[in-house]
Amino acid sequence: MILRNLKAEGLAHNTYFIASGEEAVVIDPRREPADLRECLDLARESGAIIRYILETHRNEDFVHGSLELEKMTGATIYHGASLPFKYGQPLRDGDRITFDKLSILTMETPGHTPESLTYVLYDQKYPDEPLATFTGDALFVNSTGRIDLPDENEKHVNAGKLYDSIHGKILPLGDHVVIYPAHGAGSVCGSGMGDRDWSTIGYEKRTNPHLQLGRDEFIEYKVGEKFVRPPYFLRMEDYNLNGPPLLESRRAPVPLGVQTFDRAMRQKGTEVVDIRLPQAFGGGHIPGSYSIWLGGMALFPGWLFDYETELLLVPYEDEDAWKADRLLCRIGFDQVYGYLAGGFEPWQNAGMPIEFTGELPVDALKPLMDTSDIRLIDVREPREWQNGIVPGALLRYVGHLKTDLPDVPRDRPVAVMCSVGHRGSLGASILQKAGYGQVYNVPGGFTAWRARDYPVKPAK
Amino acid sequence: MILRNLKAEGLAHNTYFIASGEEAVVIDPRREPADLRECLDLARESGAIIRYILETHRNEDFVHGSLELEKMTGATIYHGASLPFKYGQPLRDGDRITFDKLSILTMETPGHTPESLTYVLYDQKYPDEPLATFTGDALFVNSTGRIDLPDENEKHVNAGKLYDSIHGKILPLGDHVVIYPAHGAGSVCGSGMGDRDWSTIGYEKRTNPHLQLGRDEFIEYKVGEKFVRPPYFLRMEDYNLNGPPLLESRRAPVPLGVQTFDRAMRQKGTEVVDIRLPQAFGGGHIPGSYSIWLGGMALFPGWLFDYETELLLVPYEDEDAWKADRLLCRIGFDQVYGYLAGGFEPWQNAGMPIEFTGELPVDALKPLMDTSDIRLIDVREPREWQNGIVPGALLRYVGHLKTDLPDVPRDRPVAVMCSVGHRGSLGASILQKAGYGQVYNVPGGFTAWRARDYPVKPAK
Repeated sequence: MILRNLKAEGLAHNTYFIASGEEAVVIDPRREPADLRECLDLARESGAIIRYILETHRNEDFVHGSLELEKMTGATIYHGASLPFKYGQPLRDGDRITFDKLSILTMETPGHTPESLTYVLYDQKYPDEPLATFTGDALFVNSTGRIDLPDENEKHVNAGKLYDSIHGKILPLGDHVVIYPAHGAGSVCGSGMGDRDWSTIGYEKRTNPHLQLGRDEFIEYKVGEKFVRPPYFLRMEDYNLNGPPLLESRRAPVPLGVQTFDRAMRQKGTEVVDIRLPQAFGGGHIPGSYSIWLGGMALFPGWLFDYETELLLVPYEDEDAWKADRLLCRIGFDQVYGYLAGGFEPWQNAGMPIEFTGELPVDALKPLMDTSDIRLIDVREPREWQNGIVPGALLRYVGHLKTDLPDVPRDRPVAVMCSVGHRGSLGASILQKAGYGQVYNVPGGFTAWRARDYPVKPAK
Repeated sequence: MILRNLKAEGLAHNTYFIASGEEAVVIDPRREPADLRECLDLARESGAIIRYILETHRNEDFVHGSLELEKMTGATIYHGASLPFKYGQPLRDGDRITFDKLSILTMETPGHTPESLTYVLYDQKYPDEPLATFTGDALFVNSTGRIDLPDENEKHVNAGKLYDSIHGKILPLGDHVVIYPAHGAGSVCGSGMGDRDWSTIGYEKRTNPHLQLGRDEFIEYKVGEKFVRPPYFLRMEDYNLNGPPLLESRRAPVPLGVQTFDRAMRQKGTEVVDIRLPQAFGGGHIPGSYSIWLGGMALFPGWLFDYETELLLVPYEDEDAWKADRLLCRIGFDQVYGYLAGGFEPWQNAGMPIEFTGELPVDALKPLMDTSDIRLIDVREPREWQNGIVPGALLRYVGHLKTDLPDVPRDRPVAVMCSVGHRGSLGASILQKAGYGQVYNVPGGFTAWRARDYPVKPAK
C-alpha cells in the first residue's frame, strides 16, 4: 500500500493518494496543473490506475480538481448526497468502495458543510479494524472545522451537528486509528490547527482542546469563533457544486518587458500586484500596485479582485510569478495577464516612476502613538484582536479595507499594523492607492510590539 | 563523445567535461562541492572514468578544484610549465594526451598569464583536423583576456605575447574550429564578452573587434583597457599555484535564530552581509550590515573582507544563503558563520533594531544635483566612467570605498550611484556603516539617469 499526502503550502490543504496493487484512489484533488500532474506521477510510479476520486465535501477555499482528473483518467467521482452536485456520484452513510486489497467506508459527518463525508480506510483482511480515517474539515489536528459557512444564522445547529459527527461517528472508530485531515496550520477553514498533518484518534482525544468540551460547551465555543469570509468563497462554492471551468483554455503567465507592462497596466480591468516581501515593496515599487507577498497569493486576491480582473505581477525573481500563478489557479483565478520579466529592477533601470511605502518600526511608532501624532490601523482578523491590541488602534480587517476605507485624515501620517508586517504592507498599499499621503507599514507588526513589551489592551 | 559546459553563474566561468567511451577529461574544475559533484555525476552518467584534469592557466578569480578532483578520482593534473606549481604535471607546446578515440594537443599561448595553455581537441581518426579549442583566458567570444595581471609595468610585453598567441597559434587552426572559452559575459577577466559560451574561429575572425586590430593597434588597445584588481586575486594566485586548502574541513552554513545571530554579530571578527536585493535592503536591514546582492557574492566579499572574517548572511529566503555559500567557496572564503534563519523578517518580528537606506530615484536626484543640495558618488569601474558620468559626480570605485572614504560632509545628504543600483547599495551600506548620516542609493543608477535623458559629461 502506498499512501501519500500531496500538500499545498499557502492553502495548507492535503490531497491524499492511496494505491494498492494496480488500483488507486485520490481524495480531494485540486484543479491546478502541477497538482494534477503529481497525482498522475504517483500513479505511474506506483504502477496503479486511479479508479476513484473521493471528495470529502464541497470546499470553499480552493477549486476541486475532480473533473480534470476524471477527464485524464476515467476515474469515477464520489461525494456527499445532500447537495445537488452537477457532476459525480453520491455516497451515503455506510457505502463502501473497494480497490485491490483495501476498502473505504463512507460516514456522513455534517457540521462544516451539510454533505461532509469522512472516509475510513480498511484492509479487507481485517474488515472490522479501521486503519485510518480521512476527516476532511470535520476534525483537524488540535482543532475542528469552522461551522459558520453554511448559514451564519444556523451556527448553533451546525455546531451541534459537528459535535455529533465527531463524537458519534469518528471518535468511536478507536484510539489506534490514524487521522488524515484535509487541512493543516494556516488554513482559513479553522483556527489553531497543529502543524502536523497526521494524528491518531487516541492522541486527539487526549490533546485536542475542542474534544475536551461537552456538547453545550462545544457549541458555545464554536459559535463564538470569529472568522472572516472572503468574497471568493462564493465563487468556489459555485465551482465546486456545478463544476469549474476546465484548464485547457488557461493561459500560462507571460513575461513582459517594461514598456509592455506599462501599457498593460494602463488598460482598464488590469491591476498590478507586487508579490515581493514587504521590505522590498517598501524600498521601491510601481505606483498604484498592491502589495501581496507570495504566500498571500493563496488567499488575498480573493478579497481584492473580482474574477474578471487581469493581474500583472511584479516578482522578486521570475520563478515567483509562476509560483503565484499556481496559487491563483487553485482559487480559480485564471486571468494572470503576465509578469514583469526580471522583477522590479528593469522598471527602475528604465527610469520609470517609483513609489515608496514608509516603514515605521515599533520603536519609532511608540513615541508617535504617545503623542497622538499618527493614526494606527490594525488590519488583523477579529480573532487576533481578541488577544490584545495597541491602545488607540483603529480596527479594520485588511480584507475589508479597500471597500471600507478608514475615516482618518488623508494628509496626516497613518500606520498599518498586522501580526508581522505582510498584511500590513497590503493594507498600506491599499491606502496609498486610495490617496492617503503618508502611509507607513509597521515591520514586525504586533509581534514586534509585544516583543518590546509595549502596552497592550484588550479589544472591546 | 560527450562534451558539456559546467557553467558557474556570477563567476561566468566554464568548466568543460569531455568523455569518449570509458574515459573522460575535465578542463578547469572549480573547488566547490556541488561543482565537483557535477563532474562526478557526468562521469557516472556517461559511464566514464575521469583520467585527466587540464588547467588552462593559474586563475585569479576562483579556486581550482583540481586537487579535490584528483583525490576523488585518481586523475592526473596537467598545466603550464613556466610557473613553479606545487602540484600536477607540466605540459609543453606540442604535448598531446589521448583518451579513448580522442586526443588533446597543447599549445602554449602566453599573454594573460605567462603559462597559459590552449587545448585543441582532435578525433584520432582525423589527426590533422582540429575539431574544437579550449582557449582559456586568451580568446573570448567578442573579446580577449586582460593582460594587466602578471605585471602592471609589463602590459606592452604581455599584450604583444597575447597577440602572437592568438594570431600565431589559435587562429591558424582554421575557421571551422569551435571555440570554448573559459569565461562568458560578466567575468572580471575581460570586458565586452558576448553572452554566448561558444563560437568558431571563423566567426570570431569576422566579428570579434579585438581581432580586427593590427599588432600595434591591439597592444595599444589592450594597454589602455582599465580593470580593477580585487585584493583576493592575490590569495587565488597563491592557492592556485601552491594548492588550496582541501574542502574536508569546510563547514556547511548554519541557520541561526535571532538571538544567536545577534550574539554572533557582536563577536570580534564577524561581519553581517545582507544578500537581498537593494530594494529589500533599503526597506529595512540590520544596523551595520553590508549590502551585497546574491549575484555579487561571487566577487565583492573579496574586496571587503579578509579571509579570516566570519560572515553572517541575511538572505531573502534561506536557500539563498546556501547559494551564496557556493559562490563564497569558489573564491576561497571558507568562513561562513551562518545565516539568519527565515531571512530578515524574524529579526523585525522580534522587535530588534532596524536601519534604513534612503532610495533616491533619478527624478528626485536631478533637482538636488541642480541645486548642489546633495553629493553624488559614482562607484562604477573606471572603464564604465569612460562612457560618461553625471556632471558633478565624485568618482570612486565601490571596491575602494571602504578603505578610501570620500571626503564629503558626514552630516549632509550623499547619494551613491552605479550602473543599476546593486553596487550602489553596497556603497551606500559602506558609507552608512562608516557613519555618514544621510545616505541614499540611486535605484536604476546611471542606466535610469540615461533613460531619462538627463545630462551626461565625459569623465576626465
